[in-house]
Amino acid sequence: MLPMPEYTMLRLIALATACVTCLAAHGAELPGEEPDTQRSVILIIGDGFDDQHVTMGRNYLSGHDGELILDGMPVRSAVQVQTVGKSHPWQYVADSANTATSLATGVNTQMGRVGTGPDDEDLITLAERASAAGFKTGIVSSSSITDATPAAFMAHVSSRGCENPEIILGGEMYGNEFEGCPQDAKANGGPGSIAEQIVASTVDVALGGGLKHFQTPDPATGATVLDSVDAETLTVVTDREALMSADPSLRLLGLFAKGHLPVRLQGTDGRIAEEPDTSMLNKVDWRLGSVTQPEPMDCEPNPDYGDTPPLSLLTQAALDHLSVNNERGLFLMVESASIDKQSHKRNPCGSIGEIAQLEETLAVALDYARSNPETLVIVTADHAQAAQIVPEPSLYADIPVPIYSPGYVARLNMPDGSLMTINYATSSFPSEEHTGANVPLFANSTANGRISAYMRQREVFDAMAHHLGLAP
Amino acid sequence: MLPMPEYTMLRLIALATACVTCLAAHGAELPGEEPDTQRSVILIIGDGFDDQHVTMGRNYLSGHDGELILDGMPVRSAVQVQTVGKSHPWQYVADSANTATSLATGVNTQMGRVGTGPDDEDLITLAERASAAGFKTGIVSSSSITDATPAAFMAHVSSRGCENPEIILGGEMYGNEFEGCPQDAKANGGPGSIAEQIVASTVDVALGGGLKHFQTPDPATGATVLDSVDAETLTVVTDREALMSADPSLRLLGLFAKGHLPVRLQGTDGRIAEEPDTSMLNKVDWRLGSVTQPEPMDCEPNPDYGDTPPLSLLTQAALDHLSVNNERGLFLMVESASIDKQSHKRNPCGSIGEIAQLEETLAVALDYARSNPETLVIVTADHAQAAQIVPEPSLYADIPVPIYSPGYVARLNMPDGSLMTINYATSSFPSEEHTGANVPLFANSTANGRISAYMRQREVFDAMAHHLGLAP
Repeated sequence: MLPMPEYTMLRLIALATACVTCLAAHGAELPGEEPDTQRSVILIIGDGFDDQHVTMGRNYLSGHDGELILDGMPVRSAVQVQTVGKSHPWQYVADSANTATSLATGVNTQMGRVGTGPDDEDLITLAERASAAGFKTGIVSSSSITDATPAAFMAHVSSRGCENPEIILGGEMYGNEFEGCPQDAKANGGPGSIAEQIVASTVDVALGGGLKHFQTPDPATGATVLDSVDAETLTVVTDREALMSADPSLRLLGLFAKGHLPVRLQGTDGRIAEEPDTSMLNKVDWRLGSVTQPEPMDCEPNPDYGDTPPLSLLTQAALDHLSVNNERGLFLMVESASIDKQSHKRNPCGSIGEIAQLEETLAVALDYARSNPETLVIVTADHAQAAQIVPEPSLYADIPVPIYSPGYVARLNMPDGSLMTINYATSSFPSEEHTGANVPLFANSTANGRISAYMRQREVFDAMAHHLGLAP
Repeated sequence: MLPMPEYTMLRLIALATACVTCLAAHGAELPGEEPDTQRSVILIIGDGFDDQHVTMGRNYLSGHDGELILDGMPVRSAVQVQTVGKSHPWQYVADSANTATSLATGVNTQMGRVGTGPDDEDLITLAERASAAGFKTGIVSSSSITDATPAAFMAHVSSRGCENPEIILGGEMYGNEFEGCPQDAKANGGPGSIAEQIVASTVDVALGGGLKHFQTPDPATGATVLDSVDAETLTVVTDREALMSADPSLRLLGLFAKGHLPVRLQGTDGRIAEEPDTSMLNKVDWRLGSVTQPEPMDCEPNPDYGDTPPLSLLTQAALDHLSVNNERGLFLMVESASIDKQSHKRNPCGSIGEIAQLEETLAVALDYARSNPETLVIVTADHAQAAQIVPEPSLYADIPVPIYSPGYVARLNMPDGSLMTINYATSSFPSEEHTGANVPLFANSTANGRISAYMRQREVFDAMAHHLGLAP
């Protein structure tokens, strides 16, 4: 799956030229703590990767009677996703900010919050705990590295929108007034925007998209976040070659797109789910007239993908970087972000391509765990999403009235010649809603005894923290 | 949960008056088989009980931070639901007939088929295998006992609609032409309708609704299925008192409603999910005008429920009946049928009440397993369903355009004062579609080593059959 020969050569050059002596500081123990056996956690988050999406991916990528790599993982759990309400104790549907915060910190919070609790208190993340205890830490995502999921492991702001030094002060966002996070701004004595906090964090490797947020000038100083980078401690790379030759003794920030990384697949000619076309008579009475379903489509390569580094390659690069002179172990979070983003856009092929990326990433993680047996590998989702696999044809196809989804459908040509139809019908808005089902969790055998059959999302943090000996 | 004192007294009277000497025949071993330790399987099927419904039930019945009884079960799996296509290898969404047939026989088949394979061949069910090997067997459902799920364990017809001796010959069904299953009709040398096959089956206890199908005359003879019952071997009861005093030495058929058993809960004044009400301007352009969401509703007792015996009481009665003079063990399938039926009707309170019934039934099953340690208890769903928990308010509530589901929504008042909103939006027809996600499976510790983290539905049959020593 990875272009291994090219990859290996570049890594060998990088390792041979590395300043190995200055790595000792990274492996330093905290006072009073004894180095233990090396222990590691690799957490893979499929954003919006609920059971409908898992099945959609399995059916398309492995065949309806086949198995995904994650189906072979021996431990499975259902995870209750929890969101603190604003006027009532709970909201029953989450976003990626509050869920990533639960996973990263073990504390439930409100929608939109990144690494902060319901009272805007900063919460210590597992990556921060791990760094402080001498573990190497890495965050990889196919979204902007400043997006909610990766950000919640590295930064602390009241709103996920506060990605750069300009927007943190508020302004217009998606044509709407955005209040920003003024109390978090550096001008107001705060830690700064998400981009600023990532650069200042203790995370050893952060790889993803989001270059534009690091190039946005601070209105007060005119300087960008990249301008503030100390090249003696942090390498910034923006392409595959620079990634492969980066000095493993320095912290590493990789930004491979202006925003989110492009996705791998799209529908035929860029088509997404479409509204069934009903006749005039049907608009008068639902029992009359006729309906024309959208034409079937194929999943094809997205021409915008170009030479975007695959998520699995970023993951392997992060593991290699974190493995140099690593005595204690590592914590690595990898997000396949656009399963969710493409589901918002009603683009099942887009989601399926990113499920394939998650699978390839899981293969890299399991390979690492084979060589490093005390590695806990967990795959889970942050929240459920809108897509549903619906019957083709309808269960009621024999009844002589037009029957169709009130929303949008995409009918995918499957390798066996059949059709898999995906329904998106949660919103009149051009972006679908998240949904509230508990989400699946898959883990390797290292999870035995730590992962139970039913968990709350904050308890997944507990399991990871206990495995690393870092429980609060 | 059960009215135990009344129940216990009735059972004591029944047991005291039972003809215990004539029970030996039921415990007889097949030639050449040695009696083993007593081993049992209790399979609880929540029809349509996918992860959205599990979460809906958990949030409403146990609180968002609470746990259902099934959440405490130590083994969890995801089960791929498989349907043989008519023109292509697969269809990606199932119905209750083909899925129950997979669970009952270990063979994948086409939609609508009950205990028959894709070439209309009769498939041996686990209940039949168990009976032949000297196990006691029982089937309990809150639907008509002739409905697809219970029928697939006892009968063999080409179409689930063939429930009685009249309709098996074809005719009108839901205002539509129905071809029936003429090759299965007794007049044509077949085994007869589902009702006829249940009476003629080896199942020891069958409890549910569906009295009307046993009272429908055969057009050829004028006789009903009940007319054919030999009261020396099979007791037919239609109320709770008769159930409790039934002779445990005879086979038992309990029919407690003309059709499906009424459900326990409904929405306020019988309300179900409703369409958001949009203003005229919004019908001109989706960005304009306004929308009024349906008023919130409570879940309240369904006045039609009356003195319907709860599913847990039927389950306890079946277990008691099957336990008399039982040396080998038992196979019992219990279905909470109307989680699905109420989801088709867009009635979340209806589904939630039947999830409560499933939970009470599970408590009875786990209690039995405590006294009978070699009892494998499995809870699973047959297929996924349309309902989705959606955000309240919308994720995009800050954007000044009307945002609403294109389908039907019900906003439930929750005990903590918040709202849980359920979306039904798969079909323009007055009945929602099933969906295609893999379904959850929960099992007690007896399942360790038999249930893996990912299974195909036919493999659940394999696990149960192996536990009973009945693998084909």
